[in-house]
Amino acid sequence: MKFCAECGSPVALRTPRDDHRERFVCTACDTIHYQNPRLIVGAIPEWEDGRILLCRRAIEPRHGLWTLPAGFMENGETTWQGAARETLEEANARVEIKDLYAMYNLAYINQVHLLFRAKLLDLDFSPGVESLEVELFKEEDIPWDTLAFRPVKFALQHYFTERKTGNFTLHTGDIEPPVRK
Amino acid sequence: MKFCAECGSPVALRTPRDDHRERFVCTACDTIHYQNPRLIVGAIPEWEDGRILLCRRAIEPRHGLWTLPAGFMENGETTWQGAARETLEEANARVEIKDLYAMYNLAYINQVHLLFRAKLLDLDFSPGVESLEVELFKEEDIPWDTLAFRPVKFALQHYFTERKTGNFTLHTGDIEPPVRK
Repeated sequence: MKFCAECGSPVALRTPRDDHRERFVCTACDTIHYQNPRLIVGAIPEWEDGRILLCRRAIEPRHGLWTLPAGFMENGETTWQGAARETLEEANARVEIKDLYAMYNLAYINQVHLLFRAKLLDLDFSPGVESLEVELFKEEDIPWDTLAFRPVKFALQHYFTERKTGNFTLHTGDIEPPVRK
Repeated sequence: MKFCAECGSPVALRTPRDDHRERFVCTACDTIHYQNPRLIVGAIPEWEDGRILLCRRAIEPRHGLWTLPAGFMENGETTWQGAARETLEEANARVEIKDLYAMYNLAYINQVHLLFRAKLLDLDFSPGVESLEVELFKEEDIPWDTLAFRPVKFALQHYFTERKTGNFTLHTGDIEPPVRK
């Protein structure tokens, strides 16, 4: 951030009074511009035979890899509405959102991921503009080696383990920066 | 938002290609400025005798009313770190953050609230700069009529009901705009 969104003057990093960290503050109108983490909301859509809906990404990052339908939560919606909207946008699929199933902190990129269990309501799905393919996978067919994101992998691993017991519990954790080789 | 934070030129509301809603887009450099919901993270700090730590607000909104320690999550931290930091800032109190206990959607103000169960680690607490008083309350002494926010009230009601059973479960819900009389 270089300029004030309210008046267009340059901003500078300063610690406002009674604050504990530096913020971008306008040098002309003194508006403080806070920057906060973003929420990613998504679904684990399960069809009645137990298969899970995955999308193959048509966009960066991780173009060509598989993921659960998920994306940035928007203003004016709830977390459940956001998860259902992302599923509709990425897979043209209708779901009934159920319990919150996973919360992951990705502090290194200022994100919190919330993934919900979901019931896929019909088989009339197709790739949205951000997807190359949309497909239902049995547990044994999940493309573990070509999943796009670790939160997706961790949530699915936990999901299949717990589904055998019939008892789903909230899964939470912190995801550290990936190790680049 | 009126000006581009990157180049200082005016922004205009436009729907970017492949997007589904209007965004503030720079009329000069085409930067898209997304606006997303914010996370409020907080704690339900319980002392070993069962009393709960509340803070009386020294700031607006709801100056003078009681609340759980909570506030805007910051970049670079996890939800648990944020809840512990807010407790330290508002009550100078050290806590061990436990399970996620409540998630509330406040779509009308673009917020998601995450409240965690927490163990208060010592009695060396005092009002932070945003608090007038910090006090431990038995269940029967909770100032229900002077609580600042509905998420605090709902989480505490649920907490005391469940504590009797010894079984805490995640509480989730949507909070609608308040009715102004």
